Amino acid sequence: MDQMLQQEESLDPEDWEAMRATAYRMVDEAVSRLSNVRDSPVWQNMPDSVRETYKEALPRSGMPLDEVFDEIRANLLPYPMGNIHPRFWMWYMGASNFTGALGDFLAAILGSNLGGGNHAAALMDQQVVDWLKTMVGFPAGASGTLTSGGSVANLIGLTVARNTALGQQTIREHGVAGAKLAFYASDQVHGCHLTAMEVLGLGSKSLRCLPSRSDYTMDVTALRAQIAEDRAHGIQPVAIIATAGTINTGAIDDLYALADVSQREGLWLHVDGCIGALAAIAPKNGDKLNGLDKADSVALDPHKWLHAPFEVGCCVVKDRSQHVDTFALSQSYLEKEPRGVAAADWLHDFGIQTSRGFRALKVWMSLKEHGVEKFGRLIDQNINQAEYLADRIRMAPDIELLANPMLDIVCFRIYLPNMTDSNLEALNREVMLRLQEDGVAALSDTRVGSTYALRCAISNHRTQRRDLDILVEQIEELIPTCRSTLPGYEPY
Amino acid sequence: MDQMLQQEESLDPEDWEAMRATAYRMVDEAVSRLSNVRDSPVWQNMPDSVRETYKEALPRSGMPLDEVFDEIRANLLPYPMGNIHPRFWMWYMGASNFTGALGDFLAAILGSNLGGGNHAAALMDQQVVDWLKTMVGFPAGASGTLTSGGSVANLIGLTVARNTALGQQTIREHGVAGAKLAFYASDQVHGCHLTAMEVLGLGSKSLRCLPSRSDYTMDVTALRAQIAEDRAHGIQPVAIIATAGTINTGAIDDLYALADVSQREGLWLHVDGCIGALAAIAPKNGDKLNGLDKADSVALDPHKWLHAPFEVGCCVVKDRSQHVDTFALSQSYLEKEPRGVAAADWLHDFGIQTSRGFRALKVWMSLKEHGVEKFGRLIDQNINQAEYLADRIRMAPDIELLANPMLDIVCFRIYLPNMTDSNLEALNREVMLRLQEDGVAALSDTRVGSTYALRCAISNHRTQRRDLDILVEQIEELIPTCRSTLPGYEPY
Ligand SMILES: Cc1ncc(COP(=O)(O)O)c(C=O)c1O
Ligand SMILES: Cc1ncc(COP(=O)(O)O)c(C=O)c1O
Repeated sequence: MDQMLQQEESLDPEDWEAMRATAYRMVDEAVSRLSNVRDSPVWQNMPDSVRETYKEALPRSGMPLDEVFDEIRANLLPYPMGNIHPRFWMWYMGASNFTGALGDFLAAILGSNLGGGNHAAALMDQQVVDWLKTMVGFPAGASGTLTSGGSVANLIGLTVARNTALGQQTIREHGVAGAKLAFYASDQVHGCHLTAMEVLGLGSKSLRCLPSRSDYTMDVTALRAQIAEDRAHGIQPVAIIATAGTINTGAIDDLYALADVSQREGLWLHVDGCIGALAAIAPKNGDKLNGLDKADSVALDPHKWLHAPFEVGCCVVKDRSQHVDTFALSQSYLEKEPRGVAAADWLHDFGIQTSRGFRALKVWMSLKEHGVEKFGRLIDQNINQAEYLADRIRMAPDIELLANPMLDIVCFRIYLPNMTDSNLEALNREVMLRLQEDGVAALSDTRVGSTYALRCAISNHRTQRRDLDILVEQIEELIPTCRSTLPGYEPY
Repeated sequence: MDQMLQQEESLDPEDWEAMRATAYRMVDEAVSRLSNVRDSPVWQNMPDSVRETYKEALPRSGMPLDEVFDEIRANLLPYPMGNIHPRFWMWYMGASNFTGALGDFLAAILGSNLGGGNHAAALMDQQVVDWLKTMVGFPAGASGTLTSGGSVANLIGLTVARNTALGQQTIREHGVAGAKLAFYASDQVHGCHLTAMEVLGLGSKSLRCLPSRSDYTMDVTALRAQIAEDRAHGIQPVAIIATAGTINTGAIDDLYALADVSQREGLWLHVDGCIGALAAIAPKNGDKLNGLDKADSVALDPHKWLHAPFEVGCCVVKDRSQHVDTFALSQSYLEKEPRGVAAADWLHDFGIQTSRGFRALKVWMSLKEHGVEKFGRLIDQNINQAEYLADRIRMAPDIELLANPMLDIVCFRIYLPNMTDSNLEALNREVMLRLQEDGVAALSDTRVGSTYALRCAISNHRTQRRDLDILVEQIEELIPTCRSTLPGYEPY
């Protein structure tokens, strides 16, 4: 028996001092990488030898953690996506931060499950939700839940909207059945809402993607007409999905007007504020979000403009009881107890996860360290930088601004006269790819209307105006080179 | 202008050396807590003064990170849920591990978004999925995705099943419409499947929860009968949800028999293996999972028996094209490019998130450090410990074993003759709460059949047999004390 006892093993290190030393090494590496990030390439391609290492089979036996870390230093850390770099402006994400990374470390050391329970992390989770409610002007009685990101935050808001419209008991027991429902958004709506419609069993056609106006906001007249038409066809309008900050151009729908329609028509107003909702805390631009507090639910994304490391999104819901009625389950092994570890409400009653990580800590630590006012200033700074870039583009002879930035997203294209659309597209794409491959800057592309566009989304706390100067200069320098690679190019 | 440039601020520390020192402090604290975890209480109640701190309003201005950490040391770290402790056996979760915590730290430093892209983390994400496929016997051509946990992994498997049955284009565009569908599971099925049915627009009644057999596995005869009856009523059977390791008792459904039914009936076989699937890697108990490779999809949970810090679940799907056809979206700002950062398939085409954290790293690091064989031995160790506890209970005069453990879950109750059921329940609950409040051990409660039961789920790499000795001894010691607190108690 004693012999058997000795054989029991665990994942804990045999030598905690060695573990401490390895952890210090990792901290040193992290400090060195982030303090020098400006001098490293924004992105670089992996050589085949590196790619090969990711085909290695499941390791049967182990190796010292220090050697595992050597592999990480060689094959992982030099090849990030790039969003920690000051000149990364692709898609839409935050730039992470060192304090947030320490938050994820401590959360994992604490190990707690945020499905619920009577422990400190659960209180902090709710405190962070309360803080986010404050930021978007939601009342204390509203509910909210931290999620794996904005897509799931939107899914949660839309699920509550669907269930509220059909009646909780009916939908939860019998499903959508034959009900014909309609949700309304502009054609600038993020793709995750299509996925949500599909997952929810409503089908993507239930989402009316109304042609947007010239400023890429929802057309309220078209919305009213569509609602009337749907009603005339026996279709039940359920919810308006407003976007506060579209992915393509950063457009913010007219929240007051949409709140008005939703109230008159008795519809749910969900605001997809993944990009823009948090701009409500920015002193100079916060008024762009006026009306946000009229929403029934808002999806927002601390892993974007609060720069929390991935992942953390949040859905806040004004009617707490509809929220909990949508998701709460009672299971015998999950009984709430009068005392002890289980003497608390379940946090998993507000969403689709059961076990939940401790996403709150990284957000809490950064907000405590910097204060919300600084985050507000940083948002203003990005919006100001977008205006700065737009101005530079307006002055640049060969670059055309495609939409006036409403937030921090600038869409433009290189435009040379006497070139076909397809050659213009090829030229712009080639410049975008060369900027990435040279490690200079990361832009993405999209279509603005039907025009192929380069897109610069500046949700990055490390970006400085001089980075945008570099961008414009480098584009101008690349134009002749890239043009010469186009098919049919003839030098003058 | 120069003046404006100087005003630009960021979240980076002004003094990286101070940041390094703070990070070292956190590492030291982590080493000290985890290396001494056995000598700390498994759980302790928070004083009101600590609870109060979590009501503080959103901080407007900041404070030094070192002071933020002082608050964390005072108000957070002493009050964990407890699952890092060797005598935590509530619900069902892993115990986290130091290496995994470093993985979460480095993932956040790297900052990369696992929605996709041409960078090293994306390759590692897919490598970890491949490793998990290997563990559960899935072929190389299968697909898989890391998720926020088992609940979402199940949701993903069931979404693919639903869509495959109704036809991808029809369901994605038009929704469930009037289709009458049925899914099949035993009454031991985890609550997340009810939520999944509800979210999917099918309603919880679409899930037939068939009475389980005396060993708490699915009754295959009852299943066949229900399928026939549903067909006779014009209801379309879609999928069988087998459970490999039920939450209450760890029962494993007969996977061969269910694969056989699903094949004959043309149904999808989804296995909820959140608890048990990974036992397939255990040398002594792996054969309990025979037949797992016959499934169409399996949900599994590295944050349980691989002890990855929360969160990481995984869904593997044998038919890769049905998987991607269920979730893939094409959006203009997400075009795949020939070169550069976007020259790769999208990882978000396999689930409901768009942005995705780098969950893979913590799993990868632990598997590299320890090797899969050690994880297999640790699973055997837990199952062996459950048998050990069951034996001790069989020998204890006042404790009754309520089900033979099939895996690592032991259900039992204190049983004294001449006590009413409600007094027995009160006594058992009181002992459970006292064990928690005394910081000795954390058990949860449930019902086995209709009997109130205490439940010990040993998915914990730190547990040793001597911890189970302590449990039994402490229960026996608490019985007379707790009995005396019951209403109507009269000492002899
Ligand atoms: C407007 C909008 N909504 C939703 C999302 C999805 O958010 P997440 O990537 O956090 O899931 C995004 C992502 O960029 C977005 O821009
Ligand atoms: C059998 C079973 N399925 C699913 C789940 C849900 O997993 P998660 O908590 O990771 O969402 C659990 C959780 O304990 C479980 O035991």
